[in-house]
Amino acid sequence: MKRAYRKADLPVSEIRRFLEPGPIVLVSSRWRNKTNIMTMGWHTVMEFSPSLIGCMITAANHSYEMIRKSGECVINIPTVDLMEAVVGIGNSTGGHLDKFRKFGLTPEDAQEVKAPLIKECYANYECKVADTQLLVGYNFFILEVVKAQAAVYPKYPRTIHYTGEGIFMVSGKHVNLKQKFRLQNL
Amino acid sequence: MKRAYRKADLPVSEIRRFLEPGPIVLVSSRWRNKTNIMTMGWHTVMEFSPSLIGCMITAANHSYEMIRKSGECVINIPTVDLMEAVVGIGNSTGGHLDKFRKFGLTPEDAQEVKAPLIKECYANYECKVADTQLLVGYNFFILEVVKAQAAVYPKYPRTIHYTGEGIFMVSGKHVNLKQKFRLQNL
Repeated sequence: MKRAYRKADLPVSEIRRFLEPGPIVLVSSRWRNKTNIMTMGWHTVMEFSPSLIGCMITAANHSYEMIRKSGECVINIPTVDLMEAVVGIGNSTGGHLDKFRKFGLTPEDAQEVKAPLIKECYANYECKVADTQLLVGYNFFILEVVKAQAAVYPKYPRTIHYTGEGIFMVSGKHVNLKQKFRLQNL
Repeated sequence: MKRAYRKADLPVSEIRRFLEPGPIVLVSSRWRNKTNIMTMGWHTVMEFSPSLIGCMITAANHSYEMIRKSGECVINIPTVDLMEAVVGIGNSTGGHLDKFRKFGLTPEDAQEVKAPLIKECYANYECKVADTQLLVGYNFFILEVVKAQAAVYPKYPRTIHYTGEGIFMVSGKHVNLKQKFRLQNL
């Protein structure tokens, strides 16, 4: 069963908290009144402020042109309860399919972009395309997170992390070593 | 206590297996007979073949110039037994410190690069700098993995995944959904 999360604003400079551990994410987009969702595993945080994310979206993917043309998307972070939807979306092409309906997901209006949020995800990062110089050659988008929300509970989401060959790692326990860090290195 | 892993070759086109889930990694480098190690959390797989990794290395970091000048480094994937060394390395600057000695790690000769492997890590990816066009502006290196090795046991490493604020997520259980994937999407 899918979870329903109550959410609060997350400062965009802190979006690493749920993205840096490397979860598979769902990327939602809108172009000319059509929406789409894709599964994405190749992404990295690139900067705190501005809040930048770099990610690979194959040009063969239907979402590629939707994101390039609209200049926007939302990165949604699913948890383990959405694992089968994540796989199903990865198996689908977006040309003629309403993936929200097909996979039982709820589109919600974003605040800063026209692309829809996925309600059932733990966190939603609204993004604008910030730099396209690596699209040619690498299909690598640099996105700026302009608005972020995350669930208020649980503190640590049970994210899923793809390893290839159909196998996901599910996030395990969290360990706090804050007292061992130098403050500027947190 | 640190583990000792027995390793075997890993095809470079399969390095996602341990990197895509988003572990914190240790990057080792060599320049003019000095070695260094840094902790890195911002990286992504970019391509299967050639086997490309993109990663952020701040120019303020001592490793930045060592990697830029030598054109090489090794991405080493530590497991939970190395968590305190990972934090200690992140707290240190590499100018005058022998981090291998200080943190009880063993340098081993790599096969394709001059930078040393870290023996105690689960996997070692030997890399050459493949593209520097995003160094200016983003400190973003694109690396090609030219040789890779990984432990033969256990099958699933207990990797650590940084979330900021001194908190690490430790990898949890693995779930195999291979039968639900379309073959070309594995």
